[in-house]
Amino acid sequence: MSNKWVYLFEEVEAAEKLCGSWEGVRAFLGGKGANLAEMTRIGVPVPPGYTVTTEACLAYLEDSSIIAEFMAQERAAMERTEELTGKKFGDPSNPLLVSCRSGAKFSMPGMMDTVLNLGLNDETAAGMIELTGDERFVYDSYRRLVQMFGSVVLDLDDELFEDAIDELKEERGIKDDTELTAEDWKELTSTFKGIIEKEGLHFPQDPYMQLQLATEAVFKSWNGKRAIDYRNAAGISHDLGTAVNICTMVFGNMGWNSGTGVTFTRNPSNGENKLYGDYLLNAQGEDVVAGIRNTKPIEELAQDLPEAYVEFETICKKLEKHYLEMQDVEFTIEKGKLWMLQTRDGKRTARASVKIAVDLANEGLIDRKTAVKRVKPAEVDTLMHPTFDPEAKKAAAAEGKLLSKGVNASPGAAVGVVAFDADLAEEWGKAGKAVIMVRPFTKPDDVHGMLAAKGILTSEGGATSHAAVVARQFGVPCVCGASDVKIDSKARVFTTTGGAKIKEGDWLSIDGTTGECFVGQIPTVSPKFEEQTDLLTLLSWADEMRKLQVWANADYPKDAERARSYGAQGIGLCRTEHMFFEEERLPIVQRMILSSDEETRQAALDQLMPMQRSDFDGIFRSMDGLPVIIRLIDPPLHEFLPDQEAVFEEVLSKKIKGQTEGLKEKEVLLEKIRGLHESNPMMGMRGVRLSIVMPGLVKMQVRAIFEAACDVAKDGIVVKPEVMIPLVGHVNELKVIQPTLEAIAAEVMEEKGIEVEYKFGTMIEIPRAALTADQVAGVAQFFSFGTNDLTQMTFGYSRDDAEARFLLEYVEQEILPENPFQSLDQSGVGQLMEIAVSKGRGTRPELEVGICGEHGGDPKSIAFCHKLGLNYVSCSPFRVPVARLAAAQAALK
Amino acid sequence: MSNKWVYLFEEVEAAEKLCGSWEGVRAFLGGKGANLAEMTRIGVPVPPGYTVTTEACLAYLEDSSIIAEFMAQERAAMERTEELTGKKFGDPSNPLLVSCRSGAKFSMPGMMDTVLNLGLNDETAAGMIELTGDERFVYDSYRRLVQMFGSVVLDLDDELFEDAIDELKEERGIKDDTELTAEDWKELTSTFKGIIEKEGLHFPQDPYMQLQLATEAVFKSWNGKRAIDYRNAAGISHDLGTAVNICTMVFGNMGWNSGTGVTFTRNPSNGENKLYGDYLLNAQGEDVVAGIRNTKPIEELAQDLPEAYVEFETICKKLEKHYLEMQDVEFTIEKGKLWMLQTRDGKRTARASVKIAVDLANEGLIDRKTAVKRVKPAEVDTLMHPTFDPEAKKAAAAEGKLLSKGVNASPGAAVGVVAFDADLAEEWGKAGKAVIMVRPFTKPDDVHGMLAAKGILTSEGGATSHAAVVARQFGVPCVCGASDVKIDSKARVFTTTGGAKIKEGDWLSIDGTTGECFVGQIPTVSPKFEEQTDLLTLLSWADEMRKLQVWANADYPKDAERARSYGAQGIGLCRTEHMFFEEERLPIVQRMILSSDEETRQAALDQLMPMQRSDFDGIFRSMDGLPVIIRLIDPPLHEFLPDQEAVFEEVLSKKIKGQTEGLKEKEVLLEKIRGLHESNPMMGMRGVRLSIVMPGLVKMQVRAIFEAACDVAKDGIVVKPEVMIPLVGHVNELKVIQPTLEAIAAEVMEEKGIEVEYKFGTMIEIPRAALTADQVAGVAQFFSFGTNDLTQMTFGYSRDDAEARFLLEYVEQEILPENPFQSLDQSGVGQLMEIAVSKGRGTRPELEVGICGEHGGDPKSIAFCHKLGLNYVSCSPFRVPVARLAAAQAALK
Repeated sequence: MSNKWVYLFEEVEAAEKLCGSWEGVRAFLGGKGANLAEMTRIGVPVPPGYTVTTEACLAYLEDSSIIAEFMAQERAAMERTEELTGKKFGDPSNPLLVSCRSGAKFSMPGMMDTVLNLGLNDETAAGMIELTGDERFVYDSYRRLVQMFGSVVLDLDDELFEDAIDELKEERGIKDDTELTAEDWKELTSTFKGIIEKEGLHFPQDPYMQLQLATEAVFKSWNGKRAIDYRNAAGISHDLGTAVNICTMVFGNMGWNSGTGVTFTRNPSNGENKLYGDYLLNAQGEDVVAGIRNTKPIEELAQDLPEAYVEFETICKKLEKHYLEMQDVEFTIEKGKLWMLQTRDGKRTARASVKIAVDLANEGLIDRKTAVKRVKPAEVDTLMHPTFDPEAKKAAAAEGKLLSKGVNASPGAAVGVVAFDADLAEEWGKAGKAVIMVRPFTKPDDVHGMLAAKGILTSEGGATSHAAVVARQFGVPCVCGASDVKIDSKARVFTTTGGAKIKEGDWLSIDGTTGECFVGQIPTVSPKFEEQTDLLTLLSWADEMRKLQVWANADYPKDAERARSYGAQGIGLCRTEHMFFEEERLPIVQRMILSSDEETRQAALDQLMPMQRSDFDGIFRSMDGLPVIIRLIDPPLHEFLPDQEAVFEEVLSKKIKGQTEGLKEKEVLLEKIRGLHESNPMMGMRGVRLSIVMPGLVKMQVRAIFEAACDVAKDGIVVKPEVMIPLVGHVNELKVIQPTLEAIAAEVMEEKGIEVEYKFGTMIEIPRAALTADQVAGVAQFFSFGTNDLTQMTFGYSRDDAEARFLLEYVEQEILPENPFQSLDQSGVGQLMEIAVSKGRGTRPELEVGICGEHGGDPKSIAFCHKLGLNYVSCSPFRVPVARLAAAQAALK
Repeated sequence: MSNKWVYLFEEVEAAEKLCGSWEGVRAFLGGKGANLAEMTRIGVPVPPGYTVTTEACLAYLEDSSIIAEFMAQERAAMERTEELTGKKFGDPSNPLLVSCRSGAKFSMPGMMDTVLNLGLNDETAAGMIELTGDERFVYDSYRRLVQMFGSVVLDLDDELFEDAIDELKEERGIKDDTELTAEDWKELTSTFKGIIEKEGLHFPQDPYMQLQLATEAVFKSWNGKRAIDYRNAAGISHDLGTAVNICTMVFGNMGWNSGTGVTFTRNPSNGENKLYGDYLLNAQGEDVVAGIRNTKPIEELAQDLPEAYVEFETICKKLEKHYLEMQDVEFTIEKGKLWMLQTRDGKRTARASVKIAVDLANEGLIDRKTAVKRVKPAEVDTLMHPTFDPEAKKAAAAEGKLLSKGVNASPGAAVGVVAFDADLAEEWGKAGKAVIMVRPFTKPDDVHGMLAAKGILTSEGGATSHAAVVARQFGVPCVCGASDVKIDSKARVFTTTGGAKIKEGDWLSIDGTTGECFVGQIPTVSPKFEEQTDLLTLLSWADEMRKLQVWANADYPKDAERARSYGAQGIGLCRTEHMFFEEERLPIVQRMILSSDEETRQAALDQLMPMQRSDFDGIFRSMDGLPVIIRLIDPPLHEFLPDQEAVFEEVLSKKIKGQTEGLKEKEVLLEKIRGLHESNPMMGMRGVRLSIVMPGLVKMQVRAIFEAACDVAKDGIVVKPEVMIPLVGHVNELKVIQPTLEAIAAEVMEEKGIEVEYKFGTMIEIPRAALTADQVAGVAQFFSFGTNDLTQMTFGYSRDDAEARFLLEYVEQEILPENPFQSLDQSGVGQLMEIAVSKGRGTRPELEVGICGEHGGDPKSIAFCHKLGLNYVSCSPFRVPVARLAAAQAALK
């Protein structure tokens, strides 16, 4: 740790030298401070100022007495700032005013505290009035300082100050703040000081005391509840600390040649390469954000202040070129002079993220690898999500169900019931309800509800409001500023100008892509993958970079087709038993299970065979040229039978009521179901165990597979069936069953007079199979990790039971870093996988190894699979594009 | 392979030189041949002869034409034999007769073929009559040769010959062979030749042709069905081959100064150091075995033939001294001259085995290590349990009283009256009745009945079913899965497939050592451990040799006492939950589980606490100075509640019948039970998971443990409690719960004003815990392998389900070498244990590691634990002596 705590914006090179990297500077000066310094270095106009480092914050939180040391350095930096601006901090004759803002390594929008106009006191206010001749402006500024100081530094309720303003407005009989006069603001400044005094506190007249207390307040805000909650939700470490940025105040409210705005260098919603933002003339930054006055789109600035606009446009391009990323900037124009107050990488929708990455690469600003690394797998996932069915939406509109149109703040369609506060949204969300959270606007302490909701609707605020920013970040559809909507939070109801009245719990459908909001439920449709050209481009680049193949889990021909259209290079898991549950098949399956003689059983199997064959036929045709892994029957037989308690109830009722009709039959059924009952069916008679004890079923399946394969091959289609035997724990299980099945394959090919390329292999889902993989690979020609079961057995968790009873509590208490059924437990389950790969390939170097558990679609798990040297991951069809990107990113690491 | 195929008995040194070891000689010449040669070498009188080697057998079975080569060598050996005996093979004037017997490396009694009296033909028979003057003896011998040659060499049915004898006896009107005259035997010899001719075969007159064909017949018999079946059953390799021993015939039936006998050098029943055997004067060996004439005890030979007896006694001592083992010998006295025909290590009972080993060591013949290695752990096990009087059992079987044979689940013999439920078993047991509890299977709430019963019989489940595990734990004899038995619990009766019908209250005798189950009472004999001085001596020697400590699993003070009396050095597993099933406690436990408010729950816990404390108090007192590991609650809570289906039945009945009384209450209970229902309870909410979500119970337990420990310590007793947390899969589970519990320990010690030595540790029973043992050992101060659960999860087997459905079939089909719940699966489960020991000790070198699964009492598993460097094995009290021996043998390997 250095004992230089304060860096002028112009000292960025010294900071960089100390930190060794840009990443280091960001951690050291915070994102905002680093960028202010960086803009200063590249000649972008930034109001002079300096940063108190994140290390200072940590040191202060450790021992607050160190503040004296910081203040000495702040004084020196302030002197240099005075030199640069030609003003003097606390000097009534030419006062320098500064802002004090927090700035952590990672952006935490609205989470931390800011104080503006530091340096104003009774004397300097008077001096400024003399200088500017604008008493209204000065007292407005002064009351803002007192108000912010009161709420942020002295921790008073901001309502106290707002109420005082409202009171005065009522007294004056006016509605808008703009109607308040210089005298009013002056009175309010005094009222505000009174409010503070009344609480036994004090607004300091000494500018340096103001500065010190503001600095300390920002430091302390790092450990405020809001900030901690946000970091928990966003996965940001708690030990980074925040920097404090002290920056010369510039004013956008000094007349109609002044103004202020917030702008993205490209469209953050669709990625279009065009400035996108809002501004207000003669206004402060807060006014833009608060949404009190209607902002103007940024392109209109070209008419309003052409010179400033041209300069602004040039600076935006310069910043993009420098940061090689779309930027989110804040600016102020003070009497025609443009000042940049902030730049940072802009948040964006998934769609924009993909387009911007692809465009930046095509524009030559970044290379394709960088483009591929820029897009988060979760963003691709979002693009696979549904939108409203256009016809249904049109119909809903025709029926008058369109309630309002607001700002399309975060894309995607969402359907849910209305909840009017974050706590209820969270409660309902956790209970599994689809919720649309409806609020006038959102605040940082609403975030837990926003994350639990399917969608967010606000009646106030715009595309850069808190609700919009957070919703985009977390991929939650959001409509903002739906001004037709009047919310009565107390009555738990909202009405619309159209006369609709929506109660809490009513259904709502919102379209974050268009800003529309409908009463009722509108069916959704998935976006067409093949029309998302930017995404297709990005994924084609990813395909060139990745080593892992991406296969899909698909049980039906239509799934296989979809998987292939999404880029799947094979089917990693076709679950044959799902077919058994189909309406017309289940009775046959049940007949087979319940048969007491071999003949009836075989007859049922013979009836099932052509059905299975036709399923495989379709899958083989859609996967022409690609491998298809078909898993032989896995679940225990009782799953195909009626529920034991229900049958018991029938039997018992009949008995008590003396009804003999059908009783015997039900009793026999009950007996059979009881006979199949197991204490822990997950670890009982299923998978290969079932096949060994009752081989008829799998023999039928293998016959169906190879009959289908041969038939399809005769049509000139390239078929590559791979037969997968589940739940193997000992190589001898394979030794017993595999040769029997291979013989059937040979027999069928002989019958059909055609050869197809095929493999026999096994799932690795039992810890013992992983531990003895060297032996297992002596028989199996491929391995496929069944990480769902492997996780169950490695942890000793029955997934259903664990998730219902203790797993969520384990994750909450941080006993487990995350749910191991969602993201692979690398140190436990992953260790077994590592053993299995190394032992398996030791025996059979060409062994094909993949993963077909749900983890195959999880980016972190995919990265681990890449590291293990697996051949492929197999996931649900909708996750295939996600996996393609994640696999490329793993390869680029 | 040498091309010397034939070794004279006197050539043993050449054979030894070739083979390099005595073990090699036994393989090369077969057990019998090697011992004949060895006896020859040490000067014991053996009739001259030679051995055709096992290698010759293998070469012959490969290519039978090689027989010519053997016969050339046999001729040379025969010449030397002629020289030694002064007789000549095939010479009528002084004919040499020989026997031809098989002799493999391992004894295969009665499985292979023998031909006696080779060398007799029409001419030599006549010559012998002239020499001996005993026509009857010669024709008896001749017909034996023809008969054996016909059946053994020519493969005719022996019945053909026996029928001819019977016909003649009928004709003569006589009953016994002894009444047949010389003329009769002569006629039969001729008849026998006719029988052979009639089959188109021929009895060769050429002695060398006889010899060759007999040699070939023995070789071929190695691959006979009987021999193959025997080897399969006994686990003997099929590629060893058998040797052929050609030995000069000596005759015990040449008058009253001749005789023959079979004798053990010590008593094989009780081990007494005294000859034990039978003999007959004027008889052939077959006569002794056949039991036609009443044999005399060997000591009477001292009167009958004093000289021969003295020589025999001396030879027996000499053989024991040479072989350092009790011998089983065959001898013949021909006209006063003693010949030894065979010696081999004698089979014996468990009791004799221990005594002989100890005696031999005390006599200085062997050292103590050898003595300890000599006794099989299974023999010690036998000595721990009552057995049926062998004669009485034989008689019962002969009378058709054997009802069924099931799995020998817990050893020992038990006699009692049948009770069909646990409550009745307990009631009768408390009333002093001997009870055999008979159930389809048992559950935890049957334990009170099992403890009150003398024995347990189930019709379902195997060696690791609940019944079996509990029975072994408490040393109650148990037969499981007697599938011939059909129990009708309602009719209070069971029937067998054999047609027997046993009512409640009928007498039953079950043998848990063999799995047999008899109707009626069979008398038992029951050894007292402390009176078995030889066993105590042997075990005290074993204790000096072993590295592994032996601890015991004990839940109650009386078990702990017993364990200690059997030599346990600690308690490795005290299961606290068993106490909860006791009659007066279960209602309190249920109240605790069913309570809907914290207050009721705590009240129930407060009521349980003194009960738990008093259990621990007793155990600590009995284990003064030794460690006691107490496992915190492990099973899921639903196990303590009534059966769901039973309650459902009650609710439904009441509803249908319109009975409202008590309905609400039952509905609430049903709801609660359903709420606790899990799909796979074995992998659900139990063990540490339960403790983390509901810590009240374990906090109560830890308080009870430490209150008891402090109270006992105040009485001057040395207490070493070790608190074991079950089912840990992630170190964070320990990190969350252990400090809370340690704080309670500290609190109690503070309250009581005394410190006791204690540890906190964990079971390793979840694969993930083994894989991440380095982390787990960072918190846990000891590991105890729970190999039951570890086996379940490593294999993915639910034990109950697996044994009921496929595990036995797996063992039968040799998919698994043995039931992994009985003997540790070293390559799978063992691999995890190895990982855990090495990683655990890597973090904490002094880590105490033991095993408390049932495998802790299995000798093979104990050997593995020794190899892994565990500190102790813990097993049920009755297995402690077995484990002491097994641990010593492991150390001596």
